[in-house]
Amino acid sequence: MDLIYLDNNATTKVAPEVLEVMLPYFKEEYANPSSIYEFAKKANHTVRDSRGVIKDFLNAANEKEILFTSCGSESANTAIRGVLNMNKNKRHIITTKVEHPCVLNLYQTLEKEGYKVDYIGVNSNGELDLAQLEEAINYDTALVSIMYANNETGVIYPIEKISEIIKSKNKETKFFVDAVQAAGKIPIDVQALGVDLLGISGHKFHAPKGVGVLYVNSKTLITPLIIGGHQERGKRAGTENVPYIAGIAKAAELAMDSMNYELTEVKRLRDKLESGIIKNIFNSRINTSISNRVPNTTNIGFEYIEGELILLHLSDLGICASSGSACTSGSLEPSHVLRAMNVPFTAIHGSIRWSLSRYTKESEIDYVLKVLPGIIDKITALSPYQDELANLKRLRG
Amino acid sequence: MDLIYLDNNATTKVAPEVLEVMLPYFKEEYANPSSIYEFAKKANHTVRDSRGVIKDFLNAANEKEILFTSCGSESANTAIRGVLNMNKNKRHIITTKVEHPCVLNLYQTLEKEGYKVDYIGVNSNGELDLAQLEEAINYDTALVSIMYANNETGVIYPIEKISEIIKSKNKETKFFVDAVQAAGKIPIDVQALGVDLLGISGHKFHAPKGVGVLYVNSKTLITPLIIGGHQERGKRAGTENVPYIAGIAKAAELAMDSMNYELTEVKRLRDKLESGIIKNIFNSRINTSISNRVPNTTNIGFEYIEGELILLHLSDLGICASSGSACTSGSLEPSHVLRAMNVPFTAIHGSIRWSLSRYTKESEIDYVLKVLPGIIDKITALSPYQDELANLKRLRG
Repeated sequence: MDLIYLDNNATTKVAPEVLEVMLPYFKEEYANPSSIYEFAKKANHTVRDSRGVIKDFLNAANEKEILFTSCGSESANTAIRGVLNMNKNKRHIITTKVEHPCVLNLYQTLEKEGYKVDYIGVNSNGELDLAQLEEAINYDTALVSIMYANNETGVIYPIEKISEIIKSKNKETKFFVDAVQAAGKIPIDVQALGVDLLGISGHKFHAPKGVGVLYVNSKTLITPLIIGGHQERGKRAGTENVPYIAGIAKAAELAMDSMNYELTEVKRLRDKLESGIIKNIFNSRINTSISNRVPNTTNIGFEYIEGELILLHLSDLGICASSGSACTSGSLEPSHVLRAMNVPFTAIHGSIRWSLSRYTKESEIDYVLKVLPGIIDKITALSPYQDELANLKRLRG
Repeated sequence: MDLIYLDNNATTKVAPEVLEVMLPYFKEEYANPSSIYEFAKKANHTVRDSRGVIKDFLNAANEKEILFTSCGSESANTAIRGVLNMNKNKRHIITTKVEHPCVLNLYQTLEKEGYKVDYIGVNSNGELDLAQLEEAINYDTALVSIMYANNETGVIYPIEKISEIIKSKNKETKFFVDAVQAAGKIPIDVQALGVDLLGISGHKFHAPKGVGVLYVNSKTLITPLIIGGHQERGKRAGTENVPYIAGIAKAAELAMDSMNYELTEVKRLRDKLESGIIKNIFNSRINTSISNRVPNTTNIGFEYIEGELILLHLSDLGICASSGSACTSGSLEPSHVLRAMNVPFTAIHGSIRWSLSRYTKESEIDYVLKVLPGIIDKITALSPYQDELANLKRLRG
């Protein structure tokens, strides 16, 4: 049975070209890049060159603005803690109700430490309430932290506009963007966006799990989270993970090369999957269908049935999808993102995220469209909500 | 020209067997271990099984005591910050003058944050002053943090004895051991040692750069350094680096298998190198020659000459060695470890650390012993200290 992997927002396959560039560092080029002998030159230059590639990938002004980290969570923790530590007199933070649960966990900890955190809401399309954001910013606001694209719905937030709002209200407020779900899916230009800090994670765009990047613009001071050696200009200690640093740079190059494919072909397949499901399954709804989404993601609610059951049936056929972030897999809590969007509770529990990649084949989408109606029918037949389903069928049928 | 790599305390070559076990996770087994579908089972079980191997490697009582991190620095930062955050009323820390410079940097930051840090000294053999340590422990001591083996000299500290001293003076004081330079070189038994927390780094024993472990015994509470997802039981967020976790477990297995070789053959080659140098080069001295050292390391001072110059001449012949930690390479500061040992300043500047591994061949040691006297002669001839050298030659000649 062939695997059909439609959970690329959880993690992605390492691109073969990425593995290829990493292999020499797992074999003969094993030097510590900080060593002074000739043998360490290649490792050292690889780290330097990779930094240059990532600078281009994000359109940073300077390579010194790029730090390599071990993951998106480390990037976020470094950015948020780092800014707050440098502005100890300010105690106010603004974020959104729909951030990744990992980032929300950090804010809950900061609240316990005495920070005031405002959580901006979204409308039923998942779009941020910018008026609420503007109102919330005050003299005490150390940090605004907003994701670039939502991991569950794919909705893209208007980062450039948000930067303008922030700077017009308080020039000293720093703006961190969690761009983990944007990298590789849409172009990122930190200068055009006007952000101060931005984090990405390699394994969301075909580099391995265990490497991330934090962009920190030259006007923004942070304390290191991992204190120690001189690596990353004193902002992140630890011997550089040379293979993965080479790997994330290669993944960034591949993403730049395939950006057009992502925005056209991957989008076409996503749209085909989405419209095919809606057309053929009466108790399905697109949880957001606005145009401003990353091209690979759709989130579809199957009404009056349980998402976990759908996922298990799909898994039996080798199809991988998810009900939310992998970090919250297994939890019975309904999605905080869909709740914030006021998705009806009858659809939240049966909502499935489908996330494609440039490796997704049309035949795979066709297969899902062929088998999914049968799966949903079977599960729907067991639903205790038969009256409501009959009503729905009459209305939509 | 073949490479002769005698800088294994800086980093090591990835073992071919380690690369072998990692490859499937860079290819077809790319699932996020937190995902619920069938495809994620193998990744999930790999993380679980690897944790079991590391538990055995350190002889921990329970797998739950093992956290995977991204490096030794992260392990140290997590341990130290984690313990201090859970004991906010205590403001006293004890460490040594000869810790790794990375850990010392963290202590300097903690001093700025208001902690009182006592630095225990060593004698000329590099042995810790245990009386000073015992005296320093008081009711306010939150943490004692001492390395297992010194990265520059290889000296092993009496961790078990230190545990006893600590617990006899203050049962609530937590004991963290930076075992980065011990792992793979000598057996580690956290229960016999009686430590509360212990950190290791994969790339010092033939796993890749970018993976570490923190052991935290079940009686010790810590806050996470990287806050976010549920991974590592909430103690370390971030999607698990499955390939490297499989890799460090394999490296641990290989280390257990080759421990006897390490303690006999690697030691024999180290001793051969050491005695060969001392015998043939009049202005050389072993900076510590006590028996209680890891088997792979020796630190030799070449008097009245500059270490950097020796290293560059060695590098020209493809021989890698170092003058201290790679993290401080390029710095002109003389080694803080050798200074703490009162090594004469005439030898500190010309001190070279040689660190072998199980891959070191006897022919490589023979080659170094063949070419080194010529290199040292050449550099010594240019030394401004010719009178002192003539004296030394008369005394030792």
